[in-house]
Amino acid sequence: MARLPTRWYNIAADLPEPLPPMIDPLDDEGSRIARLVEILPSRLIELEYTLDKYIDIPGEVLDAYMKIGRPTPLARAKGFEKALGVGGGVKIFYKFEGVLPTGSHKINTAIPQAYYARLDGASEVVTETGAGQWGLAASTAASMFALKTTVFMTASSYRSKAGRRRLMEVLGATVYSSPSSVTENGRKALAEMGESHPGSLGLAIAEAVEYTLSSPDRRYLPGSVMEAVLILQTVIGLEVLSQLRDEPDYMIACVGGGSNFAGFTYPAIGAWLRGEGFEKTRFIAAESTASPKLTGGRYMYDGLDAGTVLPLAKMYSLGKDHVPPPLHSAGLRYHAAAPSLSLLRKLGIVEAVALGESEVLRHAMLFARSEGIIPAPESAHAIAAAAMVARREAGNGGVTIVFNLSGHGLLDVDAYTRFVEGGGDG
Amino acid sequence: MARLPTRWYNIAADLPEPLPPMIDPLDDEGSRIARLVEILPSRLIELEYTLDKYIDIPGEVLDAYMKIGRPTPLARAKGFEKALGVGGGVKIFYKFEGVLPTGSHKINTAIPQAYYARLDGASEVVTETGAGQWGLAASTAASMFALKTTVFMTASSYRSKAGRRRLMEVLGATVYSSPSSVTENGRKALAEMGESHPGSLGLAIAEAVEYTLSSPDRRYLPGSVMEAVLILQTVIGLEVLSQLRDEPDYMIACVGGGSNFAGFTYPAIGAWLRGEGFEKTRFIAAESTASPKLTGGRYMYDGLDAGTVLPLAKMYSLGKDHVPPPLHSAGLRYHAAAPSLSLLRKLGIVEAVALGESEVLRHAMLFARSEGIIPAPESAHAIAAAAMVARREAGNGGVTIVFNLSGHGLLDVDAYTRFVEGGGDG
Repeated sequence: MARLPTRWYNIAADLPEPLPPMIDPLDDEGSRIARLVEILPSRLIELEYTLDKYIDIPGEVLDAYMKIGRPTPLARAKGFEKALGVGGGVKIFYKFEGVLPTGSHKINTAIPQAYYARLDGASEVVTETGAGQWGLAASTAASMFALKTTVFMTASSYRSKAGRRRLMEVLGATVYSSPSSVTENGRKALAEMGESHPGSLGLAIAEAVEYTLSSPDRRYLPGSVMEAVLILQTVIGLEVLSQLRDEPDYMIACVGGGSNFAGFTYPAIGAWLRGEGFEKTRFIAAESTASPKLTGGRYMYDGLDAGTVLPLAKMYSLGKDHVPPPLHSAGLRYHAAAPSLSLLRKLGIVEAVALGESEVLRHAMLFARSEGIIPAPESAHAIAAAAMVARREAGNGGVTIVFNLSGHGLLDVDAYTRFVEGGGDG
Repeated sequence: MARLPTRWYNIAADLPEPLPPMIDPLDDEGSRIARLVEILPSRLIELEYTLDKYIDIPGEVLDAYMKIGRPTPLARAKGFEKALGVGGGVKIFYKFEGVLPTGSHKINTAIPQAYYARLDGASEVVTETGAGQWGLAASTAASMFALKTTVFMTASSYRSKAGRRRLMEVLGATVYSSPSSVTENGRKALAEMGESHPGSLGLAIAEAVEYTLSSPDRRYLPGSVMEAVLILQTVIGLEVLSQLRDEPDYMIACVGGGSNFAGFTYPAIGAWLRGEGFEKTRFIAAESTASPKLTGGRYMYDGLDAGTVLPLAKMYSLGKDHVPPPLHSAGLRYHAAAPSLSLLRKLGIVEAVALGESEVLRHAMLFARSEGIIPAPESAHAIAAAAMVARREAGNGGVTIVFNLSGHGLLDVDAYTRFVEGGGDG
């Protein structure tokens, strides 16, 4: 029976070696870490550094989690198993986060972050967004706690993803095309390149941070990568533990920055680290070949952003200046994987696989047609990885695969259309 | 605690007078009722006429309901209450059906219908769709039961709502622009008006019925209005009864054909009809001023469709040829209300209110900004009606309002954009 957890889980308490801390770049003026402390909700900073194993979920956040439809379903993908033709021995289950109001797992962390911002007495939350998923989740959560929202959206997405921008505006958010004229960073970029500037996530982060610093009533909300964000996503995996009848052979999720992977797998990985089960379970991170940090990156200190604002952290990274090709699954473009996920990968506790776009979208459509759920292209990386494992294990008998379907694809019809019209087997 | 019901409820068993039966038009060749029997899943015909009070939900349908995220949440709208300024005495709750994979309640009936079609040995389901919500739900359900789907979509929507059409295609459905060249009805219309024909729901129904009749492997799936469809939606209201702590003063839902209103309220209305509670509860149907059948129509025998294919039923109707003005909430355009709902209205058990579009969308935006959920414009009629009641009852103390939020508006951003840009208070 699905049970909504009352505590989040923090893997830092169970890691076999300490997590390398964030550091400031040596050549910088002032401390970026100190600035982070200044702009984040204060409880988020505590979570970033705590070694407490469990963190109580505040009552108002529990109420909000129930309101948005948690616990989310864990379902068996019988139709997809049949479509793959892997036989009855291979069972595939998926946790479906697409039932949440913005269509993905992002809202799980946006809600407590907005709540913590209000606890600080803030009246406004600020963030950046690329394709718009995180901005939409942040705007939604802010509305739930009566906070104003300001979002800096990369100029290219501001123009091409007008739908998500307008949804944020319906929710009452102020959305600026980045570079904007409301910050020094934005004005400088506009002066250099003019209105045709496509923007970048790094620049949008710099604008959001600058804008947050300009008033004590504002707090900055990070969408992924930070350990605090990962902790707040563990509600997914804790629910899964209450929903699973047996320990699975595989747990699979896609990786952008790592928050949905961590949220889904860390409670089980933690149990294994403590010697409390999951001995046979393999944990597989599914990334995009366009941004293959875990399979093709280096484990090193690198910038959390493109290098201008946020501290450095030790991560598998492709380099902070990595620019992936245009990608259907914009949520997987990030250049690095969260510090704890990177450490687990280095220790061999988490495995990784990189998947190409056409393989991913082909499996996404097979899943849609056999299960009735159109997946987000990002989440479809987990589907394709699950299919790969299922085919490999077919005939081995009694294998169980569980993956996280982190979001639906109702707003991603353009990605599918381009795929089908580009010659995909639609 | 939310509980997934194991039986649907049938109000026909508790009505104080018998439901007037469907009839054939006197001047017709052949029987339309006999044809309906031929094209519908056979179990659906049984449900249409049964007086059994409860109908067991088959195990495979229960599994599918859990998979899509049932039971859905019932939440208190504290932020909206505050935004309305109605004081602590008025409590507003909402049942949220927008967590379901196609974003609305339509999937609740599509799933059992597809299941019953498969029980008949059919390999394909056929239906018509206007804006695309029903077609998307039918395609989703068909995929869950490994059935082929064919959808006849009105030509004007086929062109203007390409997004929803493509989502159906991702799910594997074949979508024809209606009038199409695959049926006699379609070819006749094309011959008369050519490719510029905008289509109509009546014509799309005629095409879907003709196409279904042309093969014994096909079954036709109706989206609303029929009593069988209403029964299959009562999963909503039965969940609500398990979620409510006390009997509410008001239960409110919007009305297109009546399936979401019936699904939400009938279990409570039935309890009242049997003398088992809900004495103080008022049941309010919120319709659009553009299609005000319950407040402005006549109770009479009229066509279930525009007059060419389906039988007649006794309903509050604006006349089968009623053409409402273009409307943001396309799902409320239907000219009549389901027979049982019409009878309950005639008996004074259900009240009705008609709401104008700008009032509705203004309240939709207020709700989005105070609750963090963007409602479907259709569902927003229930929000506006709840707000009206809340304002009227403010200061009366201890009043509880529950409404059905039948769908989210993530795919309706155009409606909001037109409203804001047209001078709505965005």
